[in-house]
Amino acid sequence: MAVGLKAPADLLPVAGVQVAAVAAGLRYKGRPDLVLVHIDEGAAVASIYTLNRYAAAPVVVAKAHAAQAPTRALLINAGQANAGTGAAGMQVAQDSCHALADVLGLETEAVLPFSTGVIGAAPALAGLRAALPALVEGLAEYRWHDAACGIMTTDTMPKVASVRFTLGGKTVTATGMTKGSGMIRPNMATMLAFIATDACVDQAVLATALKTLADASFNRITVDGDTSTNDACVLIASGHAGNERISRAEGEDYSALIAGLAPLFVGLAQAIVRDGEGASKFVTIHVTGGTSEADCRSVAFTVAHSPLVKTALFASDANWGRILAAVGRAPHAHFEIDRVSLKLNGVLVAEHGAIASSYTEEAGASAMAKEEILIEIDLGAGAAEAEVWTCDFSHEYIRINAEYRS
Amino acid sequence: MAVGLKAPADLLPVAGVQVAAVAAGLRYKGRPDLVLVHIDEGAAVASIYTLNRYAAAPVVVAKAHAAQAPTRALLINAGQANAGTGAAGMQVAQDSCHALADVLGLETEAVLPFSTGVIGAAPALAGLRAALPALVEGLAEYRWHDAACGIMTTDTMPKVASVRFTLGGKTVTATGMTKGSGMIRPNMATMLAFIATDACVDQAVLATALKTLADASFNRITVDGDTSTNDACVLIASGHAGNERISRAEGEDYSALIAGLAPLFVGLAQAIVRDGEGASKFVTIHVTGGTSEADCRSVAFTVAHSPLVKTALFASDANWGRILAAVGRAPHAHFEIDRVSLKLNGVLVAEHGAIASSYTEEAGASAMAKEEILIEIDLGAGAAEAEVWTCDFSHEYIRINAEYRS
Repeated sequence: MAVGLKAPADLLPVAGVQVAAVAAGLRYKGRPDLVLVHIDEGAAVASIYTLNRYAAAPVVVAKAHAAQAPTRALLINAGQANAGTGAAGMQVAQDSCHALADVLGLETEAVLPFSTGVIGAAPALAGLRAALPALVEGLAEYRWHDAACGIMTTDTMPKVASVRFTLGGKTVTATGMTKGSGMIRPNMATMLAFIATDACVDQAVLATALKTLADASFNRITVDGDTSTNDACVLIASGHAGNERISRAEGEDYSALIAGLAPLFVGLAQAIVRDGEGASKFVTIHVTGGTSEADCRSVAFTVAHSPLVKTALFASDANWGRILAAVGRAPHAHFEIDRVSLKLNGVLVAEHGAIASSYTEEAGASAMAKEEILIEIDLGAGAAEAEVWTCDFSHEYIRINAEYRS
Repeated sequence: MAVGLKAPADLLPVAGVQVAAVAAGLRYKGRPDLVLVHIDEGAAVASIYTLNRYAAAPVVVAKAHAAQAPTRALLINAGQANAGTGAAGMQVAQDSCHALADVLGLETEAVLPFSTGVIGAAPALAGLRAALPALVEGLAEYRWHDAACGIMTTDTMPKVASVRFTLGGKTVTATGMTKGSGMIRPNMATMLAFIATDACVDQAVLATALKTLADASFNRITVDGDTSTNDACVLIASGHAGNERISRAEGEDYSALIAGLAPLFVGLAQAIVRDGEGASKFVTIHVTGGTSEADCRSVAFTVAHSPLVKTALFASDANWGRILAAVGRAPHAHFEIDRVSLKLNGVLVAEHGAIASSYTEEAGASAMAKEEILIEIDLGAGAAEAEVWTCDFSHEYIRINAEYRS
């Protein structure tokens, strides 16, 4: 049911970063479910993680390792989230890093573990260990498609893309992959996203860039409002592009880096929403006229999370009353409802908080019949704006989430 | 699909309060859709309203009228919410009060208007006016069942009940009705609730009592997290019971009033959840061990609003991972996830943030197979507690909300 999501094409290798995937049989049969990202020495690696207090064991271990040594490898399993697994799960996360470090000849802290799948289950350490030699054997710079398939859970399509842009006179390449379809309301990160570029960037600058890029992409999406226990987003800069090292989070080169990577981040984030569980509509909510960006985000996310708005979207119903009712209950936002206006796919539906005199049900129905819906809300209170992306709630959403685990 | 909701029985008249309902044909055919509550002179009447900025026209008019004159009549229409209807809707709300005041020989400000139904539509004033003589003609102290039927929209059953208790040596009677099934996340009030007692209470004390009672009942329920534009709750004290007037919000008589009315408020609030759109489970979420009641409420409502928890409940799936993931993302709450424990219908499922060693999937499945589910969450951080009530998200929920308006 993915909305406007195309099969990945034109993927570019990133010099200094090799990837691989194997079918380790940890949960799924006959498909890759264990993925390795190997990073050449000297690269900068930045990572951000879920703010859910209920962080999975691999999140705890990855954060600790990232603080202790330069990151050289990412090990990702799909099928078990290794969250809510107590001391045993923590041991699995640590031992899997240790086992991979042994095979690669690295220190244990150079490996970051990531898991996604069912909460309460951990991958079997023996099966994981047995698959490591074949995984390392398969490492190659061109295997991004395989890797993107290997991290999927309820995703219906792999999500991976590349961009190429110019930075300080040099051509820079970036390729990234992500996964996620449900439990999607990233908070400082997303389900799982791994983006690599060959740009040369200082570690501290890369960390700033990652936060900026994630705030404008993964932190703007929601499927169901449920922040995951396993959210993580990693940005690798291998330094092979030959550009002059970016050592400040400002200036022309830094701006070119952000501008060059932003479309990749936004495209991957939107791919998660397009493949949202049961999604039949891709919905952009653009809020303008706020007194702050935070106010605009509050309104946009309140609309995006409203079950009544989401079911009306599924029904292609121009139910503007439900949208304005959600706007009206947005927390911590400053505006007067009688200055609010609303457009659906360009059709002015409401102004001054009430139905617009020019509006007809026919125009509304025609606008809502499309697969891609733009909801524009002007608060009439200031100059700030914000945009978030979401999808609808369908019968398929209930089916998927009532049946998952069974 | 109402869960454990019985047909109303043993309704008691409240001296000094008369009710009536007629089929005015405002939206529905062949059923009452216009309701009148008439209050004898000298009664105290307290009312609270939605905190949604997008308040319906009748909410604006009712608040203004309540501040200007003693309330003598409540006029309620079902079918049109008269929200988002601009100046025209405001005129309908005012003119309907004026018309009823004329028939009853009251000043206009003695009438409070209430509407529920489709946002963006207002009741036809001509039709409403034409129905007023028959409505007034039908006034009687015993017609609560008719009145409760007349305020229904997507409700599948009328919600009305009575209690009798002793206060200062006198027998006090109270009868109340409510409606609501979707767009239910009351914020200081509920969809619509009208409760009358014959107790004798000062106006200011009654206002305090209403807030206390609503906080422990209607403000503890959620179906879909969507706060309505039309929420209102009115408490009438006719003064006919003969008890000594309660003039302070403390002391034995005040406590007896609160204790006597609380079961009525809680029962009506729970009836809304039991009749929640598509509900197949009635779910009590009891959070203990918080550092404050606000913390406990934050956790309880985050769990209650989680689409992943609600779909797991629909599937009778003991998906404790989704519950703990929701607990973990609760905003503004102070606790450590590794001190949290969770019980489902008395079965210990998780402790120290992970699965309990004594837990078996069979025990979990057996607990979840019931229609009434108790989710007990101990935060292990303090002594505060809070309880909220909600229902599951079913296929029927999507069907109702994708088809409503059509």
